Amino acid sequence: MIDLRSIHTPADIRSMSVDGLQELCDSLRTVLIEKLGHHGGHVGPNLGFLEPTVALHYVFNTPVDKIVFDVSHQTYVHKMLTGRIRAFLDPAHYDDVTGYTNPGESEYDLFTVGHTSTAVSLAGGMAKARDMMGGSENVIAVVGDGSLSGGEAFEGLDYGATLGSNLIVVVNDNDMSIAENHGGLYDNLRRLRSTDGKSENNYFRTLGFDYIYVPYGNDIRSLVEAFRKVRDIDHPVVVHLNTQKGKGYAPAETRREFFHYQAPFDIATGELISISCTETYDDIFAGHMLDRMAADPRIAVITAGTPGVLGFTPERRQKAGRQFIDVGIAEQEAVALASGMARAGARPVFGVVSSFLQRAYDQLSQDVAINGTPVVLNIFYGSVAGMTDVTHLGWFDIPLVANIPGWIFLAPTCKAEYLAMLDWAIDQTRYPVAILTPNNLTCDDSTNYSIGYDDIDSNVVSHRGREVAIIGAGNCFVTAQAAAGILAGKGIDTTVINPRFLSGLDTRLLESLKKDHKLVITLEDGALDGGYGEKIARYYGDSDMKVLCFGVSKQFRDRYSIPALLEECTLTPDTVARAVLNALTTR
Amino acid sequence: MIDLRSIHTPADIRSMSVDGLQELCDSLRTVLIEKLGHHGGHVGPNLGFLEPTVALHYVFNTPVDKIVFDVSHQTYVHKMLTGRIRAFLDPAHYDDVTGYTNPGESEYDLFTVGHTSTAVSLAGGMAKARDMMGGSENVIAVVGDGSLSGGEAFEGLDYGATLGSNLIVVVNDNDMSIAENHGGLYDNLRRLRSTDGKSENNYFRTLGFDYIYVPYGNDIRSLVEAFRKVRDIDHPVVVHLNTQKGKGYAPAETRREFFHYQAPFDIATGELISISCTETYDDIFAGHMLDRMAADPRIAVITAGTPGVLGFTPERRQKAGRQFIDVGIAEQEAVALASGMARAGARPVFGVVSSFLQRAYDQLSQDVAINGTPVVLNIFYGSVAGMTDVTHLGWFDIPLVANIPGWIFLAPTCKAEYLAMLDWAIDQTRYPVAILTPNNLTCDDSTNYSIGYDDIDSNVVSHRGREVAIIGAGNCFVTAQAAAGILAGKGIDTTVINPRFLSGLDTRLLESLKKDHKLVITLEDGALDGGYGEKIARYYGDSDMKVLCFGVSKQFRDRYSIPALLEECTLTPDTVARAVLNALTTR
Repeated sequence: MIDLRSIHTPADIRSMSVDGLQELCDSLRTVLIEKLGHHGGHVGPNLGFLEPTVALHYVFNTPVDKIVFDVSHQTYVHKMLTGRIRAFLDPAHYDDVTGYTNPGESEYDLFTVGHTSTAVSLAGGMAKARDMMGGSENVIAVVGDGSLSGGEAFEGLDYGATLGSNLIVVVNDNDMSIAENHGGLYDNLRRLRSTDGKSENNYFRTLGFDYIYVPYGNDIRSLVEAFRKVRDIDHPVVVHLNTQKGKGYAPAETRREFFHYQAPFDIATGELISISCTETYDDIFAGHMLDRMAADPRIAVITAGTPGVLGFTPERRQKAGRQFIDVGIAEQEAVALASGMARAGARPVFGVVSSFLQRAYDQLSQDVAINGTPVVLNIFYGSVAGMTDVTHLGWFDIPLVANIPGWIFLAPTCKAEYLAMLDWAIDQTRYPVAILTPNNLTCDDSTNYSIGYDDIDSNVVSHRGREVAIIGAGNCFVTAQAAAGILAGKGIDTTVINPRFLSGLDTRLLESLKKDHKLVITLEDGALDGGYGEKIARYYGDSDMKVLCFGVSKQFRDRYSIPALLEECTLTPDTVARAVLNALTTR
Repeated sequence: MIDLRSIHTPADIRSMSVDGLQELCDSLRTVLIEKLGHHGGHVGPNLGFLEPTVALHYVFNTPVDKIVFDVSHQTYVHKMLTGRIRAFLDPAHYDDVTGYTNPGESEYDLFTVGHTSTAVSLAGGMAKARDMMGGSENVIAVVGDGSLSGGEAFEGLDYGATLGSNLIVVVNDNDMSIAENHGGLYDNLRRLRSTDGKSENNYFRTLGFDYIYVPYGNDIRSLVEAFRKVRDIDHPVVVHLNTQKGKGYAPAETRREFFHYQAPFDIATGELISISCTETYDDIFAGHMLDRMAADPRIAVITAGTPGVLGFTPERRQKAGRQFIDVGIAEQEAVALASGMARAGARPVFGVVSSFLQRAYDQLSQDVAINGTPVVLNIFYGSVAGMTDVTHLGWFDIPLVANIPGWIFLAPTCKAEYLAMLDWAIDQTRYPVAILTPNNLTCDDSTNYSIGYDDIDSNVVSHRGREVAIIGAGNCFVTAQAAAGILAGKGIDTTVINPRFLSGLDTRLLESLKKDHKLVITLEDGALDGGYGEKIARYYGDSDMKVLCFGVSKQFRDRYSIPALLEECTLTPDTVARAVLNALTTR
């Protein structure tokens, strides 16, 4: 075993022999598997890109030469080689580093990245700047095969090919996206692999790239040789590596989708250490949609490369057959395809991670809203309590979608309401409808959730009090109820409202509150700026009604504490009750 | 000449001989040139796609067979053949039809489309729905070569290729985007044309499409033959047509960029009928940027396929040399490339049409904002007084950009302020900055516009009155001043504020207004929902200040009257003054 503590910068490995590098790779892999087992993380991508990372830092003069990683979830080894080894050796320091490149951690990290398909564009920009300003460093983009289905990756390649100068695109082809790949391009990659890169028809060459194929993409000697060949090259080139996802850890080599990203596991068996028995919304969605699809051939579920997020395991995908559509990582396609399907009479439901939906704003507006096609969007992880990485925040979906004319934006508060809204959205054909999957499972049994959605923008008053009303949108409804409970103890009879629709206002209700209320509180599980609360504030702007809006203030946060942020943003029962009391007292 | 009035539906041409079709094309062309000269419009695209349109409707059984047009600015002949000939023959009815497909006009129009690169995705959706639900019609996407650089077009092809059923993609290759094409892909198209479609390396085949090449894409006989060959085909196929932009009208064949879209012109000479002598912001921008670029090699201007919008004529592009970058129609690439360039020390300025910026929301957030790269965005046509087609509305840029944490969003009120803001944005390196190009040219000479931008979010009070304040953002500042003038005549001394920054609030100023004001009016040249005014309403929500927000209400509009909409939305001096008086009286 090499003492990894002796490696402070990539310069420390450049004097090694190629045999020494192999030993280094073995040591890195052992340590990496150890951390992955105890900590969880992106297992497959990092094991599969271990040797290429070592070879890149060995051959290229980083950080003078620039490496831009796509998605950057494959950069654990890069971090191990660039001064951050302690975060992999010492469990107490496992969380010192983020799971993505982060310029705040190291000068070797050029961008904070977490969405796919951006690396060639970003690297192309660095190459273009270099050419304008007279530099001579190598600029390298590392991009996985799964990322190539994203339109931005195509745009980056298409323009990058014309630069006429050094731009090295390393394609890390492990024949997998998060799940299996989808798209015609992947047949071409398969053909390139099966012909040892010699197929006359070559996607990268059609776009104008020079091309090198490396059949053993986890063989350190081949990699060093290939990278030496392209170092200081004077034109754009693709280095196509045939790699093995999960390389060197048998369970990850076998169960490639399962081990793309995983929670802590027993290294000996590859079994998860703890299994949650709580019902989850991915299962709820998948189970419900399978039932609906079995009964109606017009219904389809669409994913853009994240079937697992929707609960669509390989078995369920098979069960759904042609009614389950994976377009690859291509959110623009998912939304526009859904619009085409809806126009032709089908009932498409696109299940998508909140943060990734951002990639399809124009399609939501142009392809869907202007055309009024009744597409259904099921948004996952759209919550302060969703993913906490700065690149995956679920705070911006309300401003993003609910402000587009024509979209109906629904925020259910619990499971029963969620399923009722989902069914309504599928069964109606008048509007495009977005539904924000809630966190909460438990519902109030006395409420009939399955009616009333045709009455667009109508809110539900769960308790009518006086003086103060709290409007709790989606996940914040239970907070509103709990705050009202605290206030009841102080003798304040608070009105509690479930707005249900966040794309428009129940003006009749809001108007009626003017009679016997003087304070309205809005709570939303997302960004304040451009959000739902501001519409209430504008509505009451010329009246005597006081309005306080609570949600996430304008900021990005990385790996934040969810309870602390909720507290800070006045989204807990206590803080809300206190804000109400404070507002009533200062009046 | 064929009497075009006798053609009510495409069925009326299906009994013609191919020779008869040629005569029909001649008649259509004569009428089309006549309307284009008198009315203006998309000259080159429609003349170049005349024969293919006739052949499509001749061979395919529209409207049972479906044709989805990309961008749909090439559909004038399609409209002439599908019951709308009067709008081309009778000048009084020229404006009966929009310049794009429009399901409200005809069942032959499947979508309202105006942005590029969507047709394959939309058609793919219709094909998928057909397959799920058991239909057998042909589904055809028509897409120009210029549109292929957009990521959505790639995503559509990549997924469409896997459908395994009828999907016919007609590539209308006239070797031009709006201006010349940019991107490595275009070398492949050139190679396909020069090898009569036989090049072994073929972009469409790499994605899995079958492929047919038609060298004479304006020859009706070749077209009929090619379309007959693919009719009822059982797998995805590309029909690659080599067409001539501006075909049959010599000035448009020669001046292809000039005649892409043009105002009315003298048909005999090809000269414009009226030439405006007013200074325009495209010229102001281009002139200023040429000066800045000449003095500083770090500065670059980026366009995504619309150099003319930025005032960058072919001569100016040549002058700018490698500091002018056209990435093709690829807004995602433009933004991400700019971020890469800024990270590497260059100073990129991306000039973009407001409506097209929508295609890069995720890049604005992830590639730029999270990374804090000092990219400069110069937004054109972001105004109610911009483009009035429903697919090109300039209303949504404030909600789109200003709500993303990290972006500084500036709204200049006149030319001097615009240039000062542009210079400040380029010279600073702390923030990504978006600037909304104003409509107004004239400035107040007594004001020094070139200072104070480092004081982020600071507003300028142009007149301090009492009781009422009007905040006039960007183009609405002159409206605010004029309204204050009217109110002064009624004895009301109105405070007038130029907020300058729309991405944050001048809380010190807003707080100070509480002392001696009771009403704040916000005016913005864009959508109310998610816009600037709502932030002011939220700020004052718990105070006694009354707030009235004016802007465009939540809606899409098509080809609206600008004065009427401004009036309706309380964005004229009179309507604003009246709203103030009304608010003060009812109090």
